[in-house]
Amino acid sequence: MAGEQSNGPLRAVYRLHLMIAIDWGTSSFRAYRVAADGAVLDKRSAPLGIMQVEGRRFAEALDSQIADWLEPGAGPVLMSGMIGSRQGWKEAPYVACPAGPEDIAQRLLEVSWGAGRRAWIAPGLSSRDAAGVPDVMRGEETQILGVLDQLPASAWICLPGTHSKWVEVREQRIARFSTHMTGEVFAVMKAHSILGRMFAGSATDLAGFDAGVQRARDPGGLLHHLFGVRARGLFGELADQSAASYLSGLLIGHELLSISGAHAEQVYLLGSPELTQLYQRALEQLERRSTTLDPDAAVRGLSRLAQHLPGE
Amino acid sequence: MAGEQSNGPLRAVYRLHLMIAIDWGTSSFRAYRVAADGAVLDKRSAPLGIMQVEGRRFAEALDSQIADWLEPGAGPVLMSGMIGSRQGWKEAPYVACPAGPEDIAQRLLEVSWGAGRRAWIAPGLSSRDAAGVPDVMRGEETQILGVLDQLPASAWICLPGTHSKWVEVREQRIARFSTHMTGEVFAVMKAHSILGRMFAGSATDLAGFDAGVQRARDPGGLLHHLFGVRARGLFGELADQSAASYLSGLLIGHELLSISGAHAEQVYLLGSPELTQLYQRALEQLERRSTTLDPDAAVRGLSRLAQHLPGE
Repeated sequence: MAGEQSNGPLRAVYRLHLMIAIDWGTSSFRAYRVAADGAVLDKRSAPLGIMQVEGRRFAEALDSQIADWLEPGAGPVLMSGMIGSRQGWKEAPYVACPAGPEDIAQRLLEVSWGAGRRAWIAPGLSSRDAAGVPDVMRGEETQILGVLDQLPASAWICLPGTHSKWVEVREQRIARFSTHMTGEVFAVMKAHSILGRMFAGSATDLAGFDAGVQRARDPGGLLHHLFGVRARGLFGELADQSAASYLSGLLIGHELLSISGAHAEQVYLLGSPELTQLYQRALEQLERRSTTLDPDAAVRGLSRLAQHLPGE
Repeated sequence: MAGEQSNGPLRAVYRLHLMIAIDWGTSSFRAYRVAADGAVLDKRSAPLGIMQVEGRRFAEALDSQIADWLEPGAGPVLMSGMIGSRQGWKEAPYVACPAGPEDIAQRLLEVSWGAGRRAWIAPGLSSRDAAGVPDVMRGEETQILGVLDQLPASAWICLPGTHSKWVEVREQRIARFSTHMTGEVFAVMKAHSILGRMFAGSATDLAGFDAGVQRARDPGGLLHHLFGVRARGLFGELADQSAASYLSGLLIGHELLSISGAHAEQVYLLGSPELTQLYQRALEQLERRSTTLDPDAAVRGLSRLAQHLPGE
């Protein structure tokens, strides 16, 4: 009790200045000590995704990673990503779009661990497409919150990846979004289909990539274009060393061409440099302008959410 | 020499009446003893696809399967399928479309085995789509030859499968065709993607299949529709028991909608009853008429080719 009394004022002061942001996904864990202005003071990561935490002992896992940061005044711990999924620590229900920072902050889910320690999990978002079919994101929403202040009133953001997200932002709120399985289809076709057998080399072949993007514009549909990868190889019109890049360009091209709303507008790219460079290249080929955003946006997004936490 | 002399006249007589047709694919071997009118007198099969023949000893494999049929007057041995591919017995180069029975018969590739025995391998076909991208088939061409006399002057044939073929027939010739990786994409997504993890049960759920076909008509593109399988599951809008059928309908729907030339015409279906029934159902939903052809057409096609063999 005496300790709490003496720590109390310190915590009240420091909580405004510091926080701990956790980006906790399926296969990785990343922790950041962050100042109120979003500046990262310290960071660490571990191959401790939610699928690697044995027996779902998430409290112990978190403690093992950040215990030494938890001195008095460490500030609140905010987490985002699959840690809030059904397979994670505690399910944080999806917030329906349109949703802004306040809507998401109001639905932060509190969890306790250790001796009276607390943390908050950011909820994911849901959206419905024109046909009413649902869509979900978990983790990307905090990245988007982190770049909101860099966007015009109306903007399209693309977060390329295993499950690429296309997000429409209007007036500082996430209006709607759609997910495309581009990266996962590439990975499974490469590893498990007849196409992967012809792939050679691991370097990106940009000419092959470009040819794949152009191919996406042809009639015939994706399922036909996929077989063309093999047939072009059989006819010596596509080198084995170019085939994986061609497939990548083909899939990304199909993804880009299916985003009708973003046709006339600037696209903002948010992701790893490797992927955003490829998407930027593909967008150029399809005569669309793009701007690449700082990929470390999740920390700023969590920092923004922390400002909405109730005082203690 | 004496034996040859005495067998000669018999062979000359019987060659016109009998033949041996071999459908030799990647994973299976099927042999038929066939009368001149195409009637199957005897048949047998073995799990002896070209990938299962050790050391590429195809002559021995063939001999092991049909030696007892090779009495005098057995007639010629004609083979089709992957046995004529680069990985098969001997590569029979693709014949470019448009191609009719005579064009294919002229390019029958002779192989010898055993003591002066001979056989012929039917070549595959190649085609180029509107954008000039090549396409290939190997085996399906003999099936199509086997149904030519059941078709009107102009017809679209669909051979559903791992690599579905859409074939335009004009005036008894194969004018052009396109391949769609529908079956293979279904298989790899089911076995290796995040979608497959939610699949339960193995029975076809027709309502789920129909919903998948309808979904293919929505905007957003296949890569987006694929993620919708998962999102619908997360939201309890697609039962685990229906999800595989929904994915099947989605992919078949996309395939059907990408065949622009066949829109106004009757589609002829040629394949296993299980698959053709699903395709017929999907075509009905998309307001297209279809007719199912006898799937054992390969034997009749090889029989037709045998009529073009030079006399001895």
